[in-house]
Amino acid sequence: MSGTAGQVIRCKAAVAWEAVKPLVIEEVEVAPPQATEVRLKILYTSLCHTDVYFWEAKGQTPLFPRIFGHEAGGIVESVGEGVTDLKPGDHVLPIFTGECKDCAHCKSEESNLCNLLRINTDRGVMIHDGKSRFTIKGKPIYHFLGTSTFSEYTVVHVGCVAKINPLAPLDKVCILSCGISTGLGATLNVAKPTKGSTVAVFGLGAVGLAAAEGARIAGASRIIGVDLHSKRFEKAKNFGVTDFVNPKDHEKSVQEVIVEMTGGGVDRSLECTGNVNAMISAFECVHDGWGVAVIVGVPNKDDVFKTHPINLLNERTLKGTFFGNYKPRSDIPAVVEKYMNKELEVEKFITHSVPFSEINKAFEYMLNGEGLRCIIRMEP
Amino acid sequence: MSGTAGQVIRCKAAVAWEAVKPLVIEEVEVAPPQATEVRLKILYTSLCHTDVYFWEAKGQTPLFPRIFGHEAGGIVESVGEGVTDLKPGDHVLPIFTGECKDCAHCKSEESNLCNLLRINTDRGVMIHDGKSRFTIKGKPIYHFLGTSTFSEYTVVHVGCVAKINPLAPLDKVCILSCGISTGLGATLNVAKPTKGSTVAVFGLGAVGLAAAEGARIAGASRIIGVDLHSKRFEKAKNFGVTDFVNPKDHEKSVQEVIVEMTGGGVDRSLECTGNVNAMISAFECVHDGWGVAVIVGVPNKDDVFKTHPINLLNERTLKGTFFGNYKPRSDIPAVVEKYMNKELEVEKFITHSVPFSEINKAFEYMLNGEGLRCIIRMEP
Repeated sequence: MSGTAGQVIRCKAAVAWEAVKPLVIEEVEVAPPQATEVRLKILYTSLCHTDVYFWEAKGQTPLFPRIFGHEAGGIVESVGEGVTDLKPGDHVLPIFTGECKDCAHCKSEESNLCNLLRINTDRGVMIHDGKSRFTIKGKPIYHFLGTSTFSEYTVVHVGCVAKINPLAPLDKVCILSCGISTGLGATLNVAKPTKGSTVAVFGLGAVGLAAAEGARIAGASRIIGVDLHSKRFEKAKNFGVTDFVNPKDHEKSVQEVIVEMTGGGVDRSLECTGNVNAMISAFECVHDGWGVAVIVGVPNKDDVFKTHPINLLNERTLKGTFFGNYKPRSDIPAVVEKYMNKELEVEKFITHSVPFSEINKAFEYMLNGEGLRCIIRMEP
Repeated sequence: MSGTAGQVIRCKAAVAWEAVKPLVIEEVEVAPPQATEVRLKILYTSLCHTDVYFWEAKGQTPLFPRIFGHEAGGIVESVGEGVTDLKPGDHVLPIFTGECKDCAHCKSEESNLCNLLRINTDRGVMIHDGKSRFTIKGKPIYHFLGTSTFSEYTVVHVGCVAKINPLAPLDKVCILSCGISTGLGATLNVAKPTKGSTVAVFGLGAVGLAAAEGARIAGASRIIGVDLHSKRFEKAKNFGVTDFVNPKDHEKSVQEVIVEMTGGGVDRSLECTGNVNAMISAFECVHDGWGVAVIVGVPNKDDVFKTHPINLLNERTLKGTFFGNYKPRSDIPAVVEKYMNKELEVEKFITHSVPFSEINKAFEYMLNGEGLRCIIRMEP
């Protein structure tokens, strides 16, 4: 055990005191992990849209002060009672959704929606005792997604920690904690395009490009990117995208354009924007007889997906996925291996890097739509 | 070759002279089969809702006079030029949708929506020359679904003929031409419930009961039948249905009732009514994480399927199927074998039998909601 095991650790964390205001680097106390928990030393973290979405507090009950962050790589510092799967020194990725390995979902080969540890955006405390492990001068600071990686140390449920190859560079593979795996898994695990098939990807942000990367890895012969911003198209070529459609350039619906381009529709489509009209287009642009559309983007609360049922009867399939159907502990280590064996290209998603002290720059890059992933380096 | 090959055959056919009026048994002339066609001697035919729907001419362009009928069993009388797959004497089932074996759909392992021979309810003539093979005193009578089995002899495209085991009793297996295979295949080929799983079936008519029969064959542990007519529930037990829900008996939605009954939803559901609200219920009653809903019933033209996209994101799958995803020529012979080896119970679908001269009684039984399938015996 490390010298700090069982002790409160004082370290730096970026605290969101209120919505939309810049994060403030504060000294926080991080309590030792309790039963079923581990304390991690975070080495690298990155910013994902979901952090920004909850920081802006537009769509849900605001919970502040809070430590955001859920894409990260780190090392186990100490483990709580009963934790046998992990030990200090293990290289890990904390994951925003968990795998208890005991519920009906974890026992199903198909689901990753763990009953116990499924993503919970409202909860700001640990499951074990309903308390936070973060305090500032004794006053609790809320957790986010059970990960709160914008801190030099954090406490996470053991079910939300993927143990990975210690040779993997954490400053690269940290981005596999969330967005990249979400897009990649949506294609490889759910859409499952076969070699030579045609794939449409709606939304060319990080998740959509990861979906395209999955199609590239699967050997798709044609990958059609759909986005409202034409400037994204050039960069998308690095991710295997061969054709581009900007809906603004056409009077016809996107689905009609794609059906014409492909002589009947694509074999697979992936919707990575969360816009319900894009979801409908993504479904209606797949080929009858065998087309599969996969919904990846998170919709708004009041959205309604609408289509004529004949589009289903004509043997199209519509599916949704959460975190690319990856089970965090069982499957993510293998995604890291895909990078290690050069099958998956991770570097091209990383467009920026800042020291922890400049974490607010990462927010600016994202808000300005600059780049894909910004790595935040925790160590000086 | 038979003595009638190449000759016009005079025989009896039940002609629908106009919508809703009783069929009239007439003497018709049946021309010899042209290239890619075969002429069949029909021994048994049965009545399906689709015949009644087009006879009532409520939902489409009326086409009269016409010879209806598409569920049948017969024997090849003669074959047209270039037909090598079939020869006189072969036992066959004519099928209302075809398989050319040459188009992208036929070459796909997943689709049965043949480009050339896909169901066409508007066409009343043969593809080869755009003409009818039926005449009465020289005046053409229209075909229906390319089969027109309410005739002692009929001409069918070779791609719409399944060659079956000559030992199979045609008075039983004739019903595998359409409805029974549609429901059975929806379960076995598309929903694919695993042994011990839970299945909901919406609509307990012949197609729904065939879907339940598929679930029984697959070893489902619980089969929940949903129907507005409680009297259907008793009979449904013979098809493996273990639980019943009549939506009229509940204030909650059917999907809520089923989710409560099953602790989260069924593993698979099949919608066999064509009612769009039942389609929505069928989708929303499947379990998150792994549930699959399959739409079988044909919707109305203006229906809109609506659901909150989060129901998809939570890893549910929505699919549709046509003719149970069976390829007519490649797959239907094996369905007949399922009956021959006693895996599939066909007899329980047959509730009535009439001689050809009383064919209008079959319409009455169906219009009154009596029974499931009525066999019409062509020979005296």
